[in-house]
Amino acid sequence: MLALATAAALSEEVPVGAVVCNPQWEILGRGRNEILERKDPTAHAELLAIRAAAQAQQSERLSDCILISSLEPCALCSGAAIFSRVKAVYYFAPVFTGVGMTRLFEVFAESFNHRPPIIQVEAFAGESARLLKEFFAKRR
Amino acid sequence: MLALATAAALSEEVPVGAVVCNPQWEILGRGRNEILERKDPTAHAELLAIRAAAQAQQSERLSDCILISSLEPCALCSGAAIFSRVKAVYYFAPVFTGVGMTRLFEVFAESFNHRPPIIQVEAFAGESARLLKEFFAKRR
Repeated sequence: MLALATAAALSEEVPVGAVVCNPQWEILGRGRNEILERKDPTAHAELLAIRAAAQAQQSERLSDCILISSLEPCALCSGAAIFSRVKAVYYFAPVFTGVGMTRLFEVFAESFNHRPPIIQVEAFAGESARLLKEFFAKRR
Repeated sequence: MLALATAAALSEEVPVGAVVCNPQWEILGRGRNEILERKDPTAHAELLAIRAAAQAQQSERLSDCILISSLEPCALCSGAAIFSRVKAVYYFAPVFTGVGMTRLFEVFAESFNHRPPIIQVEAFAGESARLLKEFFAKRR
């Protein structure tokens, strides 16, 4: 995920990377931000990883799968995770501004008919946050 | 939008249709639910319309454009609308369950750095809701 995030930064994209794994931890889909490259405002890392995994599985349901992202999913990517029915979501750095998945689920507790557990992997949070901070610092 | 929604229903997809227009009301992108057909959990009408319009414009920003959907956008499609920077969102039928765009914006008032106005077009709400009700009634 962090290698994908780094690759995004090298392409001038916000450094976020994501993968979808099956229960054997095999990677079924990879994504990194490609918004500028694809000229597609929906080309977020998590969404691309989910789409790639669904294509690989030839199924719109990824019920056994796990989404792992270097950043807490935004509203768009949370929606993609919900509709893909992934079993769980792991993320590294938390979202400080905007609406992250944790906050979305907290507020709309009972509103989603599929609500995977969201787990922060704190061990990688620092490195992911550093990549993001460096990226935005260069832009100021 | 309602013709697109009807087309979706004929393909066994939840009947939702959407378009993105420029300020001259010319259609730049069309979408209808194609989740099963594309085996893609993110292939919601609004998201496909936004992606098509961004491709047509060769830009990831649709700042002058308007998104019109037969159903109030969900979290995924609200995210797509926010990131595409559309100027306004029009919808026909409101979302009764789950998290629609109106509720999302109401709760997270200041959280989004781009927050287009959301306008319900009540004149078409009944017809859109009828298509959805018929579709789900057949499935029970």
